[in-house]
Amino acid sequence: MKLALIGVGLIGGSFAKALRAIGNVDRIVGFDVDAQALRYAAEIGILDDAAASAGAAIDGVDVVVVSTPVGSMQNIFREIAPHLSRTAIVTDTGSTKSSVIAAARRELGAAFERFVPGHPIAGSERSGVSASRADLFSNELFICTPANETDPRAMSYVEELWRSAGCRTERMSADKHDAVFAAVSHLPHVLAFALMAQVSDGKDGKDRLAAAGASFRDLTRIAASSPMMWADICVANRDALLAELDGYQQILDKWRPVIESGDTALLRSAFEAAAAARRALDASNRDDRS
Amino acid sequence: MKLALIGVGLIGGSFAKALRAIGNVDRIVGFDVDAQALRYAAEIGILDDAAASAGAAIDGVDVVVVSTPVGSMQNIFREIAPHLSRTAIVTDTGSTKSSVIAAARRELGAAFERFVPGHPIAGSERSGVSASRADLFSNELFICTPANETDPRAMSYVEELWRSAGCRTERMSADKHDAVFAAVSHLPHVLAFALMAQVSDGKDGKDRLAAAGASFRDLTRIAASSPMMWADICVANRDALLAELDGYQQILDKWRPVIESGDTALLRSAFEAAAAARRALDASNRDDRS
Repeated sequence: MKLALIGVGLIGGSFAKALRAIGNVDRIVGFDVDAQALRYAAEIGILDDAAASAGAAIDGVDVVVVSTPVGSMQNIFREIAPHLSRTAIVTDTGSTKSSVIAAARRELGAAFERFVPGHPIAGSERSGVSASRADLFSNELFICTPANETDPRAMSYVEELWRSAGCRTERMSADKHDAVFAAVSHLPHVLAFALMAQVSDGKDGKDRLAAAGASFRDLTRIAASSPMMWADICVANRDALLAELDGYQQILDKWRPVIESGDTALLRSAFEAAAAARRALDASNRDDRS
Repeated sequence: MKLALIGVGLIGGSFAKALRAIGNVDRIVGFDVDAQALRYAAEIGILDDAAASAGAAIDGVDVVVVSTPVGSMQNIFREIAPHLSRTAIVTDTGSTKSSVIAAARRELGAAFERFVPGHPIAGSERSGVSASRADLFSNELFICTPANETDPRAMSYVEELWRSAGCRTERMSADKHDAVFAAVSHLPHVLAFALMAQVSDGKDGKDRLAAAGASFRDLTRIAASSPMMWADICVANRDALLAELDGYQQILDKWRPVIESGDTALLRSAFEAAAAARRALDASNRDDRS
């Protein structure tokens, strides 16, 4: 199997390493706009070949994996469309799915039916191919969000690839995916960036950060994530994200007067419900692992 | 040295264990409103004696450590005041300092000059004496926030005790302490509780939590903290907390239209500043440890 990797970062690089580790690929050709990252990936053997463009990378390949920031995907699809063979499968790893499906539908033409929208739920606040590792997807979830047109065989093929890289796989609609991840991933990133902005700004920023303990560090860990990637995701999934952001601010708006009034009992009961849900989440994890 | 521990939870229990481990205490008498926790602490040897009340616990002791939720401290001070010897030092471990100092000033009478307001910066989303450990304070910060009246010798004595338990010590004003911790601790707890409430509520809560990855788990870890303790802290430090909450909401209010307009470049630059500050925080930690 010959694979083209467009976007050689943490996710793409880790996927390539995982496929190589289990010997599930004959040849990987890559392209990245970051020439240095591309050269590095070829040098350390993640890629067999570094191509001069996305279009050049896909010549004669069986599968194209697009693993760039979601804001770049429409241009990538446009560039590769004329070069795709009649059987090549295209898939992506983007964190938002409706916007990516819309871009693929616009640009891929007849090849759209062999486009498999995917999202491996793995990552790190670190980014770039230098952070990639073969076991990044071990026991993680790969979510497939097929369009009506998506060829079931292409989808099964892509899912099997991700399973070989260590993932469990699941299918859901793109709308549901985007609503769920707006809540559990995109909103948390916005909140973490905002908390870091709030605490580090102003004349007291240095003193405050010097006093920051484990809870602050945990809450802001993902604020070290790639700003470009996350600005792209927030804009690509803006409708679902803004709905979550509004709901979140309504909770803060509801709690503010409770804090102000000093009604400890009412505030406590608001916190109780959240704490119970969080403890149940930990308990369900322990069950999963046992 | 004979010590009374009022409130035998994570912090009080860990402090007692640490002092015992280094042999820095002759006798520890404890009291807790939770009779079961009190009995357990005596059984496992954290306490030499379990007292029937806070007043009874302090009979003849050199140091009283009040380690209850901050909302209970005024009542504790009122109860122990008539029983204090003329030399006994009183100190606390509360997460807010201005409210505790005001309560101590109101209730302790002449003993207020031997009251040392303190805050060990350590903890966990777990609470209770069963989570206590002798090394909880190892290399952590103990902050002392003296009032004008505070006896310097009493303060030095308490600081030395915490250093013997493993802490570094630092002094700052109660106002500064409360402003700093409103930002790096109290606000983050409110945000984590609110995120958990937002994601777990409603008919999709279960599906959303099933998709939650490491970033969501990190951001909400402290939402499993004690709701009573945190409702107390939020109310006790409400002025500083609400100022931080307002500042935080203003950032979200500023970012919302940027996301809505799809201005990726502007959103990215907002995220960039936050990401740079977060990465600098990690770098400064590495320096501290090296």
